[in-house]
Amino acid sequence: MKAHIDLNCDLGESFGRYVLGNDEGIMPYITSANIACGFHGGDAITMDKTLKLARDHTLRIGAHPSFPDQKGFGRIPMRIPAPILKADIRYQIAALSGMAQTYGLKLSYVKPHGALYNLAAKDEETARAVVDATFSINPGLAIMGLAGSHMEGFVLEKGMRFIREAFIDRRYTAEGRLLSRTVQGAVLTDIQAILTQIESLVKKQEVTSHVGTRVHVQADSLCIHGDTEGAVEIAKAVSEFLPTIGCTPKAS
Amino acid sequence: MKAHIDLNCDLGESFGRYVLGNDEGIMPYITSANIACGFHGGDAITMDKTLKLARDHTLRIGAHPSFPDQKGFGRIPMRIPAPILKADIRYQIAALSGMAQTYGLKLSYVKPHGALYNLAAKDEETARAVVDATFSINPGLAIMGLAGSHMEGFVLEKGMRFIREAFIDRRYTAEGRLLSRTVQGAVLTDIQAILTQIESLVKKQEVTSHVGTRVHVQADSLCIHGDTEGAVEIAKAVSEFLPTIGCTPKAS
Amino acid sequence: MKAHIDLNCDLGESFGRYVLGNDEGIMPYITSANIACGFHGGDAITMDKTLKLARDHTLRIGAHPSFPDQKGFGRIPMRIPAPILKADIRYQIAALSGMAQTYGLKLSYVKPHGALYNLAAKDEETARAVVDATFSINPGLAIMGLAGSHMEGFVLEKGMRFIREAFIDRRYTAEGRLLSRTVQGAVLTDIQAILTQIESLVKKQEVTSHVGTRVHVQADSLCIHGDTEGAVEIAKAVSEFLPTIGCTPKAS
Amino acid sequence: MKAHIDLNCDLGESFGRYVLGNDEGIMPYITSANIACGFHGGDAITMDKTLKLARDHTLRIGAHPSFPDQKGFGRIPMRIPAPILKADIRYQIAALSGMAQTYGLKLSYVKPHGALYNLAAKDEETARAVVDATFSINPGLAIMGLAGSHMEGFVLEKGMRFIREAFIDRRYTAEGRLLSRTVQGAVLTDIQAILTQIESLVKKQEVTSHVGTRVHVQADSLCIHGDTEGAVEIAKAVSEFLPTIGCTPKAS
Repeated sequence: MKAHIDLNCDLGESFGRYVLGNDEGIMPYITSANIACGFHGGDAITMDKTLKLARDHTLRIGAHPSFPDQKGFGRIPMRIPAPILKADIRYQIAALSGMAQTYGLKLSYVKPHGALYNLAAKDEETARAVVDATFSINPGLAIMGLAGSHMEGFVLEKGMRFIREAFIDRRYTAEGRLLSRTVQGAVLTDIQAILTQIESLVKKQEVTSHVGTRVHVQADSLCIHGDTEGAVEIAKAVSEFLPTIGCTPKAS
Repeated sequence: MKAHIDLNCDLGESFGRYVLGNDEGIMPYITSANIACGFHGGDAITMDKTLKLARDHTLRIGAHPSFPDQKGFGRIPMRIPAPILKADIRYQIAALSGMAQTYGLKLSYVKPHGALYNLAAKDEETARAVVDATFSINPGLAIMGLAGSHMEGFVLEKGMRFIREAFIDRRYTAEGRLLSRTVQGAVLTDIQAILTQIESLVKKQEVTSHVGTRVHVQADSLCIHGDTEGAVEIAKAVSEFLPTIGCTPKAS
Repeated sequence: MKAHIDLNCDLGESFGRYVLGNDEGIMPYITSANIACGFHGGDAITMDKTLKLARDHTLRIGAHPSFPDQKGFGRIPMRIPAPILKADIRYQIAALSGMAQTYGLKLSYVKPHGALYNLAAKDEETARAVVDATFSINPGLAIMGLAGSHMEGFVLEKGMRFIREAFIDRRYTAEGRLLSRTVQGAVLTDIQAILTQIESLVKKQEVTSHVGTRVHVQADSLCIHGDTEGAVEIAKAVSEFLPTIGCTPKAS
Repeated sequence: MKAHIDLNCDLGESFGRYVLGNDEGIMPYITSANIACGFHGGDAITMDKTLKLARDHTLRIGAHPSFPDQKGFGRIPMRIPAPILKADIRYQIAALSGMAQTYGLKLSYVKPHGALYNLAAKDEETARAVVDATFSINPGLAIMGLAGSHMEGFVLEKGMRFIREAFIDRRYTAEGRLLSRTVQGAVLTDIQAILTQIESLVKKQEVTSHVGTRVHVQADSLCIHGDTEGAVEIAKAVSEFLPTIGCTPKAS
């Protein structure tokens, strides 16, 4: 049984004229803000506004770097040579980190976005690029990644902290991976199913896989999606549900 | 008579497959590197390489932020609302500053690029955006701008240092402004004419304007162009000429 | 009294993950679709979808080219050298035109977007760049621009057709220009005020300026904004109101 | 023995301030111009200039579309959903095709660029996206692709023409694929080795693979690289060598 757990959400993904998600609406219900750095979403003014909002809501903040792909919103897998990828990640972390200082904020962690997150969870070169880039900017930063993935080993190897992330609205395979979104039923939309998965994660460090087996998932942080239909309501429900099962939302 | 003067050059302006200038060739002859931050030229990997080279040549480093315009190389005047422009400039300075730490380097100054430089030299809102953005990232940074422009006042007002820049290969108007490049003879290409202008700047803090009058130009730093034909040869000639008139190239 | 008038709307401005406006909702109430070409909004897949929708609603279609500025949504005035600007406009028109053929559609006109529209309405070089670029792609294309602006003269000079556009929700100055959005009351949000302006435009070819005087505005097409609050409801109201005053919405 | 063969080259890959290759220098020695369409290199003004030059040299012209990736010069493999990729390719072909009309030119073919070329040569979904997109713009266009790849089948299936391309300066594997550039010796730089490969391709429709075996390669067109050291000299040498072995350079 976990006495407390972190609730993280991807924020600051609006871009120029385009508004995405309801950052201000969701912030009261989460504890950590993954802030986009301008490569898949976000731009400098959005980063600035999001940092200010995160400070007002006393959230822990993390950088949310991506492949350079605004058109594909960072969701297109790209095979970028490691030195270039590392420099791209360092650039994004550095930009957000420096801008955060204006509000007296310090970055706590890095969570890669979209296709970079997924590729890092299964490809060693990509995983190491994320870890090395983060380390070179600040070895004190933690890295948030898929609970149970090989990322954890690469992060610990560097003497850094790994924040194990689980998904409350995604089905897992029997091997503890995320079931592809293209599979029917891969995304949970029913709030009761979501709360059941949360309760299982918090109380037993387990989820029920899509084939019905139980899978061990040790999570420090739960991902709240900010851009889905009813995102604010779900965030609110999750934030209110956790205390009823004896778990406090808390950045850790 | 000036006992020493800074020689600055815009560097790190290559982008992906595209190579611009000969950074490594020119570095031995300059004292300050204005490093592009990815908005008009440069990208993360180029910034990283340029920082490493600058360290190897023990150059003073500055950020060289621009309007967001890769296609126009930051040379298109843009009227960007001040809060957005300030955020864009802060983003660029922060990115370079954080990446510099990997090489144990600290930014010393900010020099706006191209159309941003020119607009800041004559438009108050743009000038203040540059100054405020720089101040908010680090009040200890100096700002490099056109010697004699209103920028100096805005910078000093903030308690920051202004590095007055003069051009060795550009004709000045009788009012001390740069003669537009579109005017015949606006750019000096003859090395002797360049050295004559340098000698006048160093010894008398003056240049001869395009109408033949003498104009006072008090310069702390001379701009060496890195992307023109024969740039390395000119840089070498300038660097060797200065000591012969009793002036040492030195970042100040 | 005008027996019929065109209702045009900017469409296809979504981009990647970002949805803007409700194109499908608004199409039943308009007669001409200005389709974004990827420089300020839109991307190839959005253009394709929008063309298909326009065909399904049997709308007249036009290209809606912009300055190259996704971050600023084409609203930042840019001073781009004329040959480059012309090539950029031709590129956009050609791309949309070729893609339209897949659905058996032909472009009828070009309406510049945002800052390009505004600059073309007052700056001769920009106006001529729009006209020349359009002419070089297809002299049979019409150009839609601000009713009463100098654009009309440049278009007619080329033997092309000019579609005079008026705004139903914008206040005009006494000189017949659009009152800047930054002025209080420049944008009409009250549906009754909008219908009053329409009635005046249709029946008397006049609007009441912001200082209360009457201004002559001869319009062939009325601009319906697609991305404002309640856009669909306004479009519906306008489309239903016109016949009640004896005017049929019709692409002309 | 082939009586004539096409010599194609990627052109128009300069971008804004950045110049790549020597298009004007190489054009006298080739017969087909693959013109970049702005997604990996090139921009509208470069496309315009390149079209004009191609007309002056009476070259056959083809579109050279790419993944949307200026930073990576279209060399990063990307897994873009097929409908989006098809729209991106159609956009590029349409843009170039429309701009070509200004100079009285018609596109003859499409040759995908870089990672798109390579992925199309081995991945069916990507290959079909290229073929379908081209077909939907104009079924009369040919497609140029790697001689011996599965592309040929997909193209012929559509009733379109396939232009089989061979490389004069790349080693082949024993299976007739291109040896990865990362392998030592994969790129031929010696002019004599290049001419030997050409002679073998022209006279026997064969090359010697990197393991020494002979591989059948039936080529209609030879790729001349425009951006390598000494590109113009190589192009000239190739163009002069072919007639000496009884083969005329000719777009076919």
